[in-house]
Amino acid sequence: MANNIGVGELKPNKKVILKNYVNGFPKESDMEIVRTETVRLKVAEGSKAVLLKNLYLSCDPYMRNRMSKHEEANYVPDFVPGSPISGFGVAKVLDSGHPDFKVGDYVWGITGWEEYSLVTSPETLFKIKDTDIPLSYYTGLLGMPGVTAYAGFYKVCSPKKGETVFVSAASGAVGQLVGQFAKLMGCYVVGSAGSDEKVNLLKKKFGFDEAFNYKKEKDLNAALKRCFPEGIDIYFENVGGEMLDAVLLNMRNHGRIAACGMISQYNLDKPEGVHNLMFVVTKRLRIEGFNAYDYFPIYDQFFQKTVPYIKEGKITYVEDVVEGLENAPAALIGLLSGRNVGKQVVVVARE
Amino acid sequence: MANNIGVGELKPNKKVILKNYVNGFPKESDMEIVRTETVRLKVAEGSKAVLLKNLYLSCDPYMRNRMSKHEEANYVPDFVPGSPISGFGVAKVLDSGHPDFKVGDYVWGITGWEEYSLVTSPETLFKIKDTDIPLSYYTGLLGMPGVTAYAGFYKVCSPKKGETVFVSAASGAVGQLVGQFAKLMGCYVVGSAGSDEKVNLLKKKFGFDEAFNYKKEKDLNAALKRCFPEGIDIYFENVGGEMLDAVLLNMRNHGRIAACGMISQYNLDKPEGVHNLMFVVTKRLRIEGFNAYDYFPIYDQFFQKTVPYIKEGKITYVEDVVEGLENAPAALIGLLSGRNVGKQVVVVARE
Repeated sequence: MANNIGVGELKPNKKVILKNYVNGFPKESDMEIVRTETVRLKVAEGSKAVLLKNLYLSCDPYMRNRMSKHEEANYVPDFVPGSPISGFGVAKVLDSGHPDFKVGDYVWGITGWEEYSLVTSPETLFKIKDTDIPLSYYTGLLGMPGVTAYAGFYKVCSPKKGETVFVSAASGAVGQLVGQFAKLMGCYVVGSAGSDEKVNLLKKKFGFDEAFNYKKEKDLNAALKRCFPEGIDIYFENVGGEMLDAVLLNMRNHGRIAACGMISQYNLDKPEGVHNLMFVVTKRLRIEGFNAYDYFPIYDQFFQKTVPYIKEGKITYVEDVVEGLENAPAALIGLLSGRNVGKQVVVVARE
Repeated sequence: MANNIGVGELKPNKKVILKNYVNGFPKESDMEIVRTETVRLKVAEGSKAVLLKNLYLSCDPYMRNRMSKHEEANYVPDFVPGSPISGFGVAKVLDSGHPDFKVGDYVWGITGWEEYSLVTSPETLFKIKDTDIPLSYYTGLLGMPGVTAYAGFYKVCSPKKGETVFVSAASGAVGQLVGQFAKLMGCYVVGSAGSDEKVNLLKKKFGFDEAFNYKKEKDLNAALKRCFPEGIDIYFENVGGEMLDAVLLNMRNHGRIAACGMISQYNLDKPEGVHNLMFVVTKRLRIEGFNAYDYFPIYDQFFQKTVPYIKEGKITYVEDVVEGLENAPAALIGLLSGRNVGKQVVVVARE
């Protein structure tokens, strides 16, 4: 049984590595499943490392950025070809030299796309305190995407009851939460997504007031005008490009745009041009970029606010769960082309 | 003598009217000097209007926006073809039905491009309290551009001592002041402008640490890298387009962009695309549009802070003064093509 693995045991370690840096749209074949050296399930004497058994891995859009080589310093380090992909995940501690983590603890944070990971700087891991909640949620609702939604909406958007809120990529790991936070605050909320199934989810499951399938709209400006006859106070930006241009036309004076991501641009050789920025001046808009890292110090505040919502059924969360590390490359590529419905999770092991 | 004009006298009134709405780059011939009806230098009995003798008129980039027809509500009203251009100016009160203004007062605010203007909502005018300062300064340093520079720099940019500041259109009515405010705060300040004469002014007269002529730079990114080897904390945006794209490449994490105007875009049929907005996300930038109108309520705060700087010689101001209302169209067109050196003012009368 997996949970009877002995400390110090030698195990083969399946990994997903990046083969080469990627230009344009990544393919599954840019990654490879390898089974390399065996790993001893023990940290070295005197080390502060932890040895993790990975359970759930998170596929997130920002990972696309790490698949390309950057000449200049980037906000996240580039992946290293030949080495395992790294990303957020949920894991169980098999051995620990660090006083904050003990054998048997569950943690979430940055780990490797492999069965077992040796984490040499475990300060970046969060110990999971509440294991009544599905552990996979710590890749999404209660992990990095959750902090992103919470900080982006409550801290960056300065929302007020009754305001109008637009969320793009609204059924994704972050968007579905932003929409629900906004509804809980008493806002009017509209989401866009890339399939009718997702649109249905937004309206039926997450309680968005309106939603549309952007792929079926000939004119995004017209779609936004239809949903927001009085304009948009808050835009939670996940996609960029053409959608941002249409949103700028429809923002109200003193509107706020929380720039979380621009997934429509990640696989283009040259990003599209955005033409309507003059509305930032004339409507006195604020566009503010942010990421979860800057807000991890308020993780506890987020957790205290969100867990009761989950337990009272006021927030729901949809995951797209793929079984098996060998299916992780397809899951990541699927995420980048919008095939996932809800938060994309890969199960490496359940316990 | 002009200052002996009798209240109630009938006078001819020279005006500058807009002939037709403008597309593309405006020409002098889009405006016309007319001498229409005579005007009686008196406000109607019981009215709260004031009758102004215009002294100095202000040419400002935002006026380009008003020369075109907008189908949707705009942040400033469109000009009306056949009617005088309106804009900021300095004037003397010849008659008044309003308790806040008396005959002989000097005021600044929105007036007409004509010799005499009847202002029916004088609440929008500011009474000039300090006439030791050149009156023309109330079109610039102590008028709308001054409030713009003050609010944009101190309120929008959240500046800190030692930060690096870039100002485009830096020798203009607003830019020259922003640079001086930033130097007074202990920032490192670089400006761009469109001629060597202006660049010289920035360095020799306004104390910018560095300046460059953007028309002579083959690569704006390289110019910015040369001036800001460690990157830009604050960008005071007056031009938009290609410059904004280059700036985004050079912003530091958590940088701020005060979006005041985008003059490079005003005469294009379709604005240029800005391609580097993903840096807003990765560098967690804030881009915030603003205008002086929203900050007129803190005019007194601005005035109290700025006047001592002027009187102590800590702030200097360069005006480009054109004599005669008949030269106002050429002055405005000159401003839109960057021919002015410093704040563009038109003298209608000196007293």
